[in-house]
Amino acid sequence: MNRRLITDEDALVERIQHLVRQPASRCVPAGIGDDCAAVRGPSETSLFLLKTDVVVEGRHFREADVPQAVGWKAVCRAVSDIAACGGRPKHALITCVLRPKQTGVWLTQMYRGIEKAARTFGFHVVGGEMARTEGPMVINVAMTGEVDEKHFVRRCGGRSGDVLFVTGVLGGSLASGWHLRFQPRVEEAVWLVRHFHIHAMMDLSDGLAADLPRLAKASDVGFTLDTSFLPRRRGVTPEQALGDGEDFELLFAVGRVDADRLEIEWRKNFPKLRLTRIGTLARKGIREGLGAVRGYDHFKV
Amino acid sequence: MNRRLITDEDALVERIQHLVRQPASRCVPAGIGDDCAAVRGPSETSLFLLKTDVVVEGRHFREADVPQAVGWKAVCRAVSDIAACGGRPKHALITCVLRPKQTGVWLTQMYRGIEKAARTFGFHVVGGEMARTEGPMVINVAMTGEVDEKHFVRRCGGRSGDVLFVTGVLGGSLASGWHLRFQPRVEEAVWLVRHFHIHAMMDLSDGLAADLPRLAKASDVGFTLDTSFLPRRRGVTPEQALGDGEDFELLFAVGRVDADRLEIEWRKNFPKLRLTRIGTLARKGIREGLGAVRGYDHFKV
Repeated sequence: MNRRLITDEDALVERIQHLVRQPASRCVPAGIGDDCAAVRGPSETSLFLLKTDVVVEGRHFREADVPQAVGWKAVCRAVSDIAACGGRPKHALITCVLRPKQTGVWLTQMYRGIEKAARTFGFHVVGGEMARTEGPMVINVAMTGEVDEKHFVRRCGGRSGDVLFVTGVLGGSLASGWHLRFQPRVEEAVWLVRHFHIHAMMDLSDGLAADLPRLAKASDVGFTLDTSFLPRRRGVTPEQALGDGEDFELLFAVGRVDADRLEIEWRKNFPKLRLTRIGTLARKGIREGLGAVRGYDHFKV
Repeated sequence: MNRRLITDEDALVERIQHLVRQPASRCVPAGIGDDCAAVRGPSETSLFLLKTDVVVEGRHFREADVPQAVGWKAVCRAVSDIAACGGRPKHALITCVLRPKQTGVWLTQMYRGIEKAARTFGFHVVGGEMARTEGPMVINVAMTGEVDEKHFVRRCGGRSGDVLFVTGVLGGSLASGWHLRFQPRVEEAVWLVRHFHIHAMMDLSDGLAADLPRLAKASDVGFTLDTSFLPRRRGVTPEQALGDGEDFELLFAVGRVDADRLEIEWRKNFPKLRLTRIGTLARKGIREGLGAVRGYDHFKV
């Protein structure tokens, strides 16, 4: 792809995986391509999760958006990735690249949104960095999390025959404003990994149509999606539910034998949050139910 | 400062310190305002260091700069902060915010620079994120490091009477291209903290004129700088040596009783790298030798 424009995020991630030296697996159980990197944690049985994530003005938020909501979104995207690994967020470092005309009010209010998320999800802002730009604002969040090694879930453990679930409803995130006020599923994910053997999990950031193939590919299997059961936000078409992105719901795979019990226990514990069987993982090569819908590629020109 | 423009980085850092909830000291021995945050590490006696740092096109590098050098600079800035705490870098997560027209070549070569630094200083790139911008490119590096708790150095331990040292030569970083090829002083810093009681240390990123007052303020003392001994890059004026910034040399304070032995041992161990006594820490309120020179404020309009 040299000399060509960079238009495909997945291809680029693969390229970078080859460029960087892969560390020994004992020190880094998970790295590039997973929701988070995982390294040895503060105790023998725990892992530190590491995640970096970025929002760019004009792409992920607009100047007119409420700054508290921008701060909330910026950190909660990373919180959602930590949750998708079964972990809890611990520390955040915030990088703000702002325009010279930016006022202290905007930054102060954005930090209020960050602090609200910190109180809600139990992490601390321990550092950060600031710089100037003449262009769109950029807010980067680096986050650590912690997870017991035995509860750590990646994308790559799915097996053919596994039942696929998603939390919440999908689609219309931008139109409804959900992308600025979404709730990372931390308690739900922690409950899932403690009570069930979750084979594979990720959070839906680019839409099911982009993210489900990623989970299937990482697990080296195929999938059969039943779009008639797709949980949609009110007024959203099936195509939008598959392709809009920024849902920040959990997608996970469990063995068929656990699926019924999981549904029953879920309703008892999280009666207000929908959980939907949307299909199964299948033999490698099978890819049913997506049609021509593609997810959102942040990297598309 | 509400409604006013944000023009002073130090004032803003203080403001943010008040905005975010300060965590319990046992979990986070150092936080906002230090070179790195420090949290409990993988063993009882070690700390994890956390640092985020950013470079912006047009501010810290130009589009025409060799991309390998841009990658080197982006990660080595964070490596330098880890070193300033006495630690070694362990993991890096890279966020690239690029323009749509950016080619794969540029990114690949930038990653070569990052990988070179990773091999040189012994860390691993374990993750990252990519996004698009229509404006200047932004590259953010989130880095972890590790340090034995007994060797962890901050800015705040300096005492009146301590001798101040700097490594290398100062000034002219931009004109000479040093800012793109500087050498983070990892081995030197690790050697210092293992063999001496270093009271306070930081890396010089904004110039001695900005950074020395920060170290003195954190330590609640004053300083007397002897500018006649200032180690200057060839062709650089004393004002430039104080104010240019991006030297990425170490500034540290040791007790007077250790200073002579330190100088002798240094010459044996690092014969090629200059070490200069530039003054002493003094009683609070004393501020001699800087004149009207101010360091570089990245946040100035």
